[in-house]
Amino acid sequence: MNTPAARPAARKARRPAATADAARASLTPETWVEAATTVLVDQGIDHVRVDVLAGQLGVTRGSFYWHFRDREDLLRRVLQAWSERSTAQLTKRLETARDDPREQLRDVISLPFRGRAAVRAARIELAIRAWARRDAMARQAVDESDASRIGYHGDIFRALGFAPDEAAMRAFLLYSYEVAESLLQGQGTPAQRQARRAYVERLMLQPLLP
Amino acid sequence: MNTPAARPAARKARRPAATADAARASLTPETWVEAATTVLVDQGIDHVRVDVLAGQLGVTRGSFYWHFRDREDLLRRVLQAWSERSTAQLTKRLETARDDPREQLRDVISLPFRGRAAVRAARIELAIRAWARRDAMARQAVDESDASRIGYHGDIFRALGFAPDEAAMRAFLLYSYEVAESLLQGQGTPAQRQARRAYVERLMLQPLLP
Repeated sequence: MNTPAARPAARKARRPAATADAARASLTPETWVEAATTVLVDQGIDHVRVDVLAGQLGVTRGSFYWHFRDREDLLRRVLQAWSERSTAQLTKRLETARDDPREQLRDVISLPFRGRAAVRAARIELAIRAWARRDAMARQAVDESDASRIGYHGDIFRALGFAPDEAAMRAFLLYSYEVAESLLQGQGTPAQRQARRAYVERLMLQPLLP
Repeated sequence: MNTPAARPAARKARRPAATADAARASLTPETWVEAATTVLVDQGIDHVRVDVLAGQLGVTRGSFYWHFRDREDLLRRVLQAWSERSTAQLTKRLETARDDPREQLRDVISLPFRGRAAVRAARIELAIRAWARRDAMARQAVDESDASRIGYHGDIFRALGFAPDEAAMRAFLLYSYEVAESLLQGQGTPAQRQARRAYVERLMLQPLLP
């Protein structure tokens, strides 16, 4: 955060009458990133524009440049925020929540089933993947997140005793399953999906016979 | 196809001098569907507009209505063409190409690796999935294609001797893997991806131990 934004109180005190200024002072960069993410999900990347967001947030276009160099800068922070929340923080939380790798495995497999938060997360992720089809910066962010998550899955399989190359291949397969449970929402009843989750867990734990 | 479009020769004979008319006569509905699909892939669904396509094809806007009732009608046929090519025809070809279900399994697993045709097919599919995030008609087409392909995978597993419920769960997992190999292009070198394919094949064939 840059210095002026970090001192909204001092700014307000100097210019108490300016409504736009007060609105600007109360907006953090996170508010812009959040609004941009919502427009991305609901309307697609082409609609994420500074004037549209400023209108929605009820502030001037100029107040955007208080926090961001340009639209590209905002988009970069949208990707960073997504990656941080959906990959870095999530992985850290999963890693530290359990010691037993079998329980860690169960946790990652159950991620697509975690109610409304999972649905919202899946919608954001699909919007970012759609954007990444035609944008190198988004593509890189998605590739890095995928690689990081697959890496964490590989850690679990290694902790379970699989050799590194086998662990990496199982990691990809299990991650594929999780992505598909999010992507193919229409396939199977809730009961079928739960049965499938348990079956996949058993299959992924079973060593390959010679 | 409606009657006038089925008789371009008669039309041409009556009005030989009209260039736009000749162009219109030479355009089949498939040409429009193809052009719309390309714009969808390269620019997204919002850019698939009758005026844009007419400009690209060098014909009048009016000539569009020779073949289609409205934009919605064109979009419906884009989905039908995709579904027909990527699901119905493909499944039929795979089913009839081999008798041995193990070879059928190997064929479906190798689909994401079939060179440029697979890359083009994957790009179209991702564009349609992106569109389906916010459009009920596209959503339905995608859900039906997914269900049909998973059904075919299930047929193979049943032919291999798995009980119906197990076959269905394996079908979903294997289909997840194929979708992910298309979607996560950045994950792994070509050699790693080939090794992974072979490993997944073995894992999917191995019965679950009690």
